[in-house]
Amino acid sequence: MTTTEISGVTVATQASVYFDGKCISHGITFADGTKKSVGVVLPASLTFNTGAPEIMECVAGGCEYKLKGTDVWLTSAPGDKFSIPGNSSFDIRVTEAYHYICHFG
Amino acid sequence: MTTTEISGVTVATQASVYFDGKCISHGITFADGTKKSVGVVLPASLTFNTGAPEIMECVAGGCEYKLKGTDVWLTSAPGDKFSIPGNSSFDIRVTEAYHYICHFG
Repeated sequence: MTTTEISGVTVATQASVYFDGKCISHGITFADGTKKSVGVVLPASLTFNTGAPEIMECVAGGCEYKLKGTDVWLTSAPGDKFSIPGNSSFDIRVTEAYHYICHFG
Repeated sequence: MTTTEISGVTVATQASVYFDGKCISHGITFADGTKKSVGVVLPASLTFNTGAPEIMECVAGGCEYKLKGTDVWLTSAPGDKFSIPGNSSFDIRVTEAYHYICHFG
């Protein structure tokens, strides 16, 4: 099941721009204070570092990813999620755009 | 006055990607059905076409723009807005990122 929209939120109007524009996200805040972000990774091979643990949920497009400490590239398609521990990293390869929701904590 | 966030909205999780990723936006819908978008234009010189009339509101960064039928480049900084008629176009030059809210109609 793909999450096409998220209701009842406050959206930050200024985007976060990472990797020279290869990743763009907008922060959203729920009524209970929970923060997530919606974003897109454009075609690129990148390494993302985590502070807090994250769950990446694919909403359109797709990617391949490899968690730190593993040697296996896995695919993520719309509706798929993968989890990254805190203070860790993952490599990501995108050939089309990868549209995602990032859940923290 | 700069609009840093927008509350009580539904956000589309999939971004719109224009000009090979030089412009990325997310659609938002208000409780009354009004649609806007929040987006960013990365450094580039582009021409945007309008269908409906639009009001572009700068929330961070800035741009220079030139409306169709004019010869004057104007600047837009945080808090500034400019209007574009429907079925028209404008040229935009961005040297840093230009973060915006697009109001329709």
